[in-house]
Amino acid sequence: MPEKKLNDLFYDMLKDIYFAERQILKSLPKLAKAAHSEELRNAFLKHRDETEGQVERLQQIFEMLGKRAQGKTCEAINGILEEGQEIIEEYKGSEALDAGLLAGGQAVEHYEMARYGTLKNWATQLGMADAANLLDETLQEEKKTDALLTQLAQSEVNRKAA
Amino acid sequence: MPEKKLNDLFYDMLKDIYFAERQILKSLPKLAKAAHSEELRNAFLKHRDETEGQVERLQQIFEMLGKRAQGKTCEAINGILEEGQEIIEEYKGSEALDAGLLAGGQAVEHYEMARYGTLKNWATQLGMADAANLLDETLQEEKKTDALLTQLAQSEVNRKAA
Repeated sequence: MPEKKLNDLFYDMLKDIYFAERQILKSLPKLAKAAHSEELRNAFLKHRDETEGQVERLQQIFEMLGKRAQGKTCEAINGILEEGQEIIEEYKGSEALDAGLLAGGQAVEHYEMARYGTLKNWATQLGMADAANLLDETLQEEKKTDALLTQLAQSEVNRKAA
Repeated sequence: MPEKKLNDLFYDMLKDIYFAERQILKSLPKLAKAAHSEELRNAFLKHRDETEGQVERLQQIFEMLGKRAQGKTCEAINGILEEGQEIIEEYKGSEALDAGLLAGGQAVEHYEMARYGTLKNWATQLGMADAANLLDETLQEEKKTDALLTQLAQSEVNRKAA
């Protein structure tokens, strides 16, 4: 077996985040449905639409690699989304629910920021400038979404819950 | 059963991150042992020492709440650390190993940044200024560690792996 190299790591992590994005795509409508605040619901729904574009970018990168787009189970995102689901169940009907949903959303965004930052860096190292650009577009979207969730968290939602 | 409020969420997440920090404390020496680069090994060992202080800060906050310090299984950190362990096994002996370890380390830091950002915000909303300060100290340490790992990732480690 030939020694594994950075391009193998890149491909492995691409499959990881492809799985993660598709789980997130399924999860966002549930978070939106549970949210009390209209602002938060809209933020989740907007990010759901954005996530569709992010999945398409990943498919383009698989194509650049000459590989079929496929996911690989990502226990990290499963754990993060599971914690979000627990909050929905345990805080149903509570004024603190939205604060919990925001925390869940931010954990998701941070996972994605870590992975896209890494993937963009690796794409650059591997001389894949087009892939690096696509990954950077998604990275910037995730950062914006995290900033929006932070803003919501710091304003009315938490004050209402206290 | 009384309605759950923000202070319940705060306590739940404190238990989540307390579990996570203790798992991270066990994991960092393994990451350090696996690292090829001395710089990366030192970064993991330094963060191990910092993590001990972060666990103590959490214990102080449990004390402020008049509660016993206890963890609650955090599937998110278990998933993130499991992915790191997989990389150690699959990339053993490969020059790309350090790049993979760095990616794992950054996923850990991002999870912590999300959680400490949320906890600090909630502590402030709940009027717990001392707890908010302790949480902010840890948040700043996590941000510094992430910046250091990013710097290492962008320099020699990945270049060597390519």
